[in-house]
Amino acid sequence: MYQNTKTAFTNLKNNKFFELTVICVIIISALEIGAKTFQLSSTATSITSLLDIFITVFFLFEISIRFLTEEDKKNFFKSAWNIFDTLVVVISLIPINDAEMALLARLVRIFRVLRMVSVVPELRVLINSLVKALPQLGYVVLLMFIIFYIYAAIGSFLFDNINPKLWGDIAISMLTLFRVMTFEDWTDIQYETMEFYPYSWIYYMTFIFFTTFAFLNMVIGIVVNVMEEEHSKEKNKNEPSMSELKTEITELKELILKLGGQKSK
Amino acid sequence: MYQNTKTAFTNLKNNKFFELTVICVIIISALEIGAKTFQLSSTATSITSLLDIFITVFFLFEISIRFLTEEDKKNFFKSAWNIFDTLVVVISLIPINDAEMALLARLVRIFRVLRMVSVVPELRVLINSLVKALPQLGYVVLLMFIIFYIYAAIGSFLFDNINPKLWGDIAISMLTLFRVMTFEDWTDIQYETMEFYPYSWIYYMTFIFFTTFAFLNMVIGIVVNVMEEEHSKEKNKNEPSMSELKTEITELKELILKLGGQKSK
Amino acid sequence: MYQNTKTAFTNLKNNKFFELTVICVIIISALEIGAKTFQLSSTATSITSLLDIFITVFFLFEISIRFLTEEDKKNFFKSAWNIFDTLVVVISLIPINDAEMALLARLVRIFRVLRMVSVVPELRVLINSLVKALPQLGYVVLLMFIIFYIYAAIGSFLFDNINPKLWGDIAISMLTLFRVMTFEDWTDIQYETMEFYPYSWIYYMTFIFFTTFAFLNMVIGIVVNVMEEEHSKEKNKNEPSMSELKTEITELKELILKLGGQKSK
Amino acid sequence: MYQNTKTAFTNLKNNKFFELTVICVIIISALEIGAKTFQLSSTATSITSLLDIFITVFFLFEISIRFLTEEDKKNFFKSAWNIFDTLVVVISLIPINDAEMALLARLVRIFRVLRMVSVVPELRVLINSLVKALPQLGYVVLLMFIIFYIYAAIGSFLFDNINPKLWGDIAISMLTLFRVMTFEDWTDIQYETMEFYPYSWIYYMTFIFFTTFAFLNMVIGIVVNVMEEEHSKEKNKNEPSMSELKTEITELKELILKLGGQKSK
Repeated sequence: MYQNTKTAFTNLKNNKFFELTVICVIIISALEIGAKTFQLSSTATSITSLLDIFITVFFLFEISIRFLTEEDKKNFFKSAWNIFDTLVVVISLIPINDAEMALLARLVRIFRVLRMVSVVPELRVLINSLVKALPQLGYVVLLMFIIFYIYAAIGSFLFDNINPKLWGDIAISMLTLFRVMTFEDWTDIQYETMEFYPYSWIYYMTFIFFTTFAFLNMVIGIVVNVMEEEHSKEKNKNEPSMSELKTEITELKELILKLGGQKSK
Repeated sequence: MYQNTKTAFTNLKNNKFFELTVICVIIISALEIGAKTFQLSSTATSITSLLDIFITVFFLFEISIRFLTEEDKKNFFKSAWNIFDTLVVVISLIPINDAEMALLARLVRIFRVLRMVSVVPELRVLINSLVKALPQLGYVVLLMFIIFYIYAAIGSFLFDNINPKLWGDIAISMLTLFRVMTFEDWTDIQYETMEFYPYSWIYYMTFIFFTTFAFLNMVIGIVVNVMEEEHSKEKNKNEPSMSELKTEITELKELILKLGGQKSK
Repeated sequence: MYQNTKTAFTNLKNNKFFELTVICVIIISALEIGAKTFQLSSTATSITSLLDIFITVFFLFEISIRFLTEEDKKNFFKSAWNIFDTLVVVISLIPINDAEMALLARLVRIFRVLRMVSVVPELRVLINSLVKALPQLGYVVLLMFIIFYIYAAIGSFLFDNINPKLWGDIAISMLTLFRVMTFEDWTDIQYETMEFYPYSWIYYMTFIFFTTFAFLNMVIGIVVNVMEEEHSKEKNKNEPSMSELKTEITELKELILKLGGQKSK
Repeated sequence: MYQNTKTAFTNLKNNKFFELTVICVIIISALEIGAKTFQLSSTATSITSLLDIFITVFFLFEISIRFLTEEDKKNFFKSAWNIFDTLVVVISLIPINDAEMALLARLVRIFRVLRMVSVVPELRVLINSLVKALPQLGYVVLLMFIIFYIYAAIGSFLFDNINPKLWGDIAISMLTLFRVMTFEDWTDIQYETMEFYPYSWIYYMTFIFFTTFAFLNMVIGIVVNVMEEEHSKEKNKNEPSMSELKTEITELKELILKLGGQKSK
């Protein structure tokens, strides 16, 4: 009988209609979260509470089916997406009465929207490709961090007395430098320090130059990576390479030579 | 006699001079719209009114010709550009006396300038290629929307009490986040929330990181698409592929082998 | 004797040392212009006046040599760079006593710095390639102008009463929209209009979307153009094409067939 | 005995564990510099002083080993990285009692973080490739400087009386123009000058246009460079060229012709 239930569940899981239902419930949960941010009448509040319970139960049901129909239970937790889904469902099951914790509970519910990514395969592919691209950019990011760190250290040594709110310690300085990198009111900061150190524009100019250059390198790195992937995909389309063609021609030559030799005998 | 008129109209439609006249009238209608935004003397106002009538009549005339010379009347409305042109012309024909509606009438007249796009083929190609590129970017846009939605929900839960004008509900929060994405006075928003949540810079940093990354992906996606199109255009220039060359060489080999075999006999 | 002078001039013109002198004088004239923007002592002022006369005379001398050594005087004025050089020299010869005109005279002298571009061949190549790229971008620029024009017309119709300084007429509106495109305090403008038209954020969002998209297209257009140029350069390096290879192989096949036929006889 | 020490040192230098220790000490020195920017208790201050001495001694030890194990002492100073490392170590050895100089001593210690780049090979490669890319961009940078210089000269001539803080002399004007290029509150500057010169928007528009265009060219220049490098790398993978293939086929043809000739005899 357990086997029957399992087959029924597997059928349900692979059902196109069920998949759509899951996506719909995720969208409804997203809309519910959105609705909660508005001022709601008491009727609407009770509706969202009911909806909340329904969504929690539905997600629990769905994740259970996916877990039960998995042949090897260990494989289930090998997928980061499954772990993520389970966590979101389990945490939202914890009963919360405390007012303090209510905010946390709300935040966890928001992550239900991210389940959209785990359900739609195209989005999952997109995220996977983003995650895969990150380590390749590792050294450029490290270099950028070193640039930030050095400039932040210099900044908080030199400009601390001028404006401790912006240059108080190395952490605040890095935040200020990030602001400079986004060009957000950076001249105000510059004019302030230039009153004490008239040559401090060199500090900002070189910083902007270095970070822009490093950022450009990062972008170009991604572009080249993507191009190369496309290129290698192209190559794998059973298209013979130049070397293969050359081997073919060389073989042909040897064949003719052999034939010529045969006849000479 | 109807046939004669039709031939005359077809000749007129394909006339280079007529095409130029249409473009000129569109430019005049654009200039007229521009002129209306300035303070005008009463003489100038009456001139623009007359111009307006002339342009409306001319456009009606032109669209009629295009409709009448179309072989199959159904095909006419299959082109989105024709429907757009007809709508712009028809709506500007509706007589408006109401003061309230006058603004709407003015707005409709502005869209006459867009007829420039429907008349100049190069612009039409440009727009078509833009529209074609959109669905391919669909999933990146969806991902970006999910990022915006989640951050907006978090933002309006956490920062609602700090500044309801910026974080009042999820809609306003999304607008605020768009502002953050354009780096427009984003640090003001950040400093405001950091007074209550000192670690809220993490919220902004991660948001900027994710959206920049998604945006970059979108741009690279377009670039790769364009490149691939160029590449496939190149390929279609009757240039034989590597595999074709290989087949040729293999055939050659078999031919020689056969000849060699013949002679051995 | 005239011939002798001409030969002497030609030698001088082609002299490496003379070219360097010209570049030096241009740099000196640039430095002189820069120096004039500072508060100068009376001694320094008289030095710059002397320098000014020296530079004017030197440039006159140099352009004369270039004109005299030109074989065909008509060709001289066929080069846009020569016309530019001559204009800069001639205009700075006009004696100016009027205080009003003094400013204009100063401005003309600034353009002497641009002679740097006409003298250094690498910069001339760079500028030429920029100018060549412009017409190819023509239609994207036209499309962008149409977008600006339509939005400016809508803006000045709807928002004129809210802030005439920003939306007074179509010209001012286009300036305001350029400001929005550069994301410069654009939310201030948006918040102002949203008080009257709560949905006016759609106006700004779509505008930013369209212009960003058109701008991206422009950039990608340039990139693809540059790539294609590089590609076609590559091709012209005497590298045989695929079709040439195929023709070669086909010829080979026919040759073998003929040989085979000969022997069968 | 000296030889023994040298071998021991060489072993130590090439030891994987020693390399990791060096990286750790650099990270500790970075953290120490960061810690100093915070308000520290007297205990913490004395700890950082001790750490400082330890780091200085360790770096001196490490650079000595690297110098001693170098076969040819002259080669050691041929590497810019070695000179940089030596300078950082030597300068931090100079005893400083003066309060004035204390700031300088602190700044020098910050550059110890840059030793990270000289120790991690991947970062060194990254920096080297950046430095190599610079001269290729030389002429675009020169062109950009000329644009800046000319606009700054015009700006300080025309707008000096309007706002000497922004347009006082050519140096300040260039700083202001850099601000305009980053779109940082540039409309404030524009609106200010437009009150005196209503057409001064042309000045800003053309400046933004030229610098954007030059910047785009710079970016595209880098992209094309990177692509070409990738392309030439690809080529060097022992892949035969089209011309090689053609030569092969031609040889084949001659071979067959010779064979055919032989047999005809």
